[in-house]
Amino acid sequence: MAETRFDVVGMGNAMVDVIAHTDEAFLGRHGLTKGAMTLIDGARGEALYAAMPPALEVSGGSAGNTIAGVASLGGRGAYIGKVSGDQLGQVFRHDIRAAGVAYDVPPAPEGLPTGRCLIFVTSDAQRTMQTSLGAGLDLRPDDVEPDLIAASRITFMEGYLWDPPGAKQAFLKAARVAHAAGRKVSISLSDPFCVERHREEFLDLVENHVDILLANEHEIMSLYQVDDFDEALQRVRGKCDAAALTRSDKGSVIVSDGEVHVIDAEPVAHVIDSTGAGDMYAAGFLLGYAQGRDLRMCGRMGAIAAAEIISHYGARPETSLAELVRAKLP
Amino acid sequence: MAETRFDVVGMGNAMVDVIAHTDEAFLGRHGLTKGAMTLIDGARGEALYAAMPPALEVSGGSAGNTIAGVASLGGRGAYIGKVSGDQLGQVFRHDIRAAGVAYDVPPAPEGLPTGRCLIFVTSDAQRTMQTSLGAGLDLRPDDVEPDLIAASRITFMEGYLWDPPGAKQAFLKAARVAHAAGRKVSISLSDPFCVERHREEFLDLVENHVDILLANEHEIMSLYQVDDFDEALQRVRGKCDAAALTRSDKGSVIVSDGEVHVIDAEPVAHVIDSTGAGDMYAAGFLLGYAQGRDLRMCGRMGAIAAAEIISHYGARPETSLAELVRAKLP
Repeated sequence: MAETRFDVVGMGNAMVDVIAHTDEAFLGRHGLTKGAMTLIDGARGEALYAAMPPALEVSGGSAGNTIAGVASLGGRGAYIGKVSGDQLGQVFRHDIRAAGVAYDVPPAPEGLPTGRCLIFVTSDAQRTMQTSLGAGLDLRPDDVEPDLIAASRITFMEGYLWDPPGAKQAFLKAARVAHAAGRKVSISLSDPFCVERHREEFLDLVENHVDILLANEHEIMSLYQVDDFDEALQRVRGKCDAAALTRSDKGSVIVSDGEVHVIDAEPVAHVIDSTGAGDMYAAGFLLGYAQGRDLRMCGRMGAIAAAEIISHYGARPETSLAELVRAKLP
Repeated sequence: MAETRFDVVGMGNAMVDVIAHTDEAFLGRHGLTKGAMTLIDGARGEALYAAMPPALEVSGGSAGNTIAGVASLGGRGAYIGKVSGDQLGQVFRHDIRAAGVAYDVPPAPEGLPTGRCLIFVTSDAQRTMQTSLGAGLDLRPDDVEPDLIAASRITFMEGYLWDPPGAKQAFLKAARVAHAAGRKVSISLSDPFCVERHREEFLDLVENHVDILLANEHEIMSLYQVDDFDEALQRVRGKCDAAALTRSDKGSVIVSDGEVHVIDAEPVAHVIDSTGAGDMYAAGFLLGYAQGRDLRMCGRMGAIAAAEIISHYGARPETSLAELVRAKLP
């Protein structure tokens, strides 16, 4: 096996989040599907941005958040995703590197702006996301360095990567390289609507390409088109080495061939913004897995990381997750 | 007198804040003067940014914050300041307009990026600021629309405008137009180091051009080069219609010819980031003044607005200040 340089390498649509508070009426007025991530083109993005209240900008992207979380937890993380050379691209590059993540993918050619996700946070801490992929559309197999994949214990991909046409080829290449090198491959299902868009391919991925599956209850029920969580859980059991299924404040359930673990959610005094909860759970779970911890401990690490992220705006940690985990898991 | 269209028009260096947490050691390592705003060139800005932890971006600029505060308080605000046509310039333009502020200054010519202020917040909620003015250097008298000034009850300028060489001419033009139209002129002293840089000119401004002075205790003591607040207060008394002097958690003191009012600070459960406290105090005070309220009420409005801003990151209001004021000042 190649020398291990990273615990987790993440692949995803790189983007900068643009976050603002809105009320429910705003969502209705602009026809936004609450709680979902919707893909929009540049023109629609401009129009929505013009209507958006004052916002703050912070680096995002589901897998980017997860890898920043891995680094904050003290793990070694690398990232593959595409930004442009524009100011928002520089912001993304700065932030992920400053988080301690290796990120060396060259910028997309001029003309494709860095991807942007407009996030509308309502008073119930739910986020409604409208994404222009921009430079993310340019991610391609050439951006996947085989040496990097072979040197990483886990290659992790966000399901959203199935949206841009070329990116899935990049992921399939990465999965092949990872397995050939004796490494693990993981996917997050990202969003119930994303599962809708790509269900057949996701079912094939889960059965044939993925070792570690991350999904929330809505996503896993959408994958198997069932309306009962326990039934979805039985369906996924045995399909991969481990499936970690998150259920918001009901915690998470981890299934592997022989085991089922039920993990409580970590208490949070005041939930401010649920953006990034799933991404951070993935960070804790995957780093624990890469470090060879037992599944219950992996789930606890995920729960602790998720609790930190929902107690503030933005989807990347504001405090050292490693210290939090040390304090809570002696 | 011209028809009144605005309560306050603000002039300042337009910029986007880049905010991150750091420890005291970081400030020492990079030779940063804690609590101050230091001007840096683009190269130094790049180097510091590379060393900066992951950050969030949010529109800033002292007078820009104040005018966003005026709008949040339910006042009619306009802004004069210069950004570029780049992405951060678009962010600035979007945010100030989305706050309800009139902002129509054309972008600076290409080559000058939008100004950026790197803000390092330490655990004591103090902010240390490193500013590249960028497009702000291009602000000039032509950017001051006489009709806009004549239609505004108060023309407000941040002291920082004395840093870029051409901007002070823009301000002096605005002050002339305002007074010719029977309007009031206000300045904030911005920063004790800014006072150091421009003391003689600021003394002349306060004596001869300014009706309403805003300063914190360090700035007013620096202006008169005294080390006692009460002495500074006696020195400024009578120099303008009103001087509102802020003292952090000790509240504020308002002096005019015949009156001295001592106003308590508004209690804050947990101070997160002091960035913008002075800007928001100015917003409340100036709007109260423009609305013809008594000086004590102006100070109370300032204190309420300042308390909101220091209870979260970023220097622009996250909730309606008008509602806060209605709740607290029945």
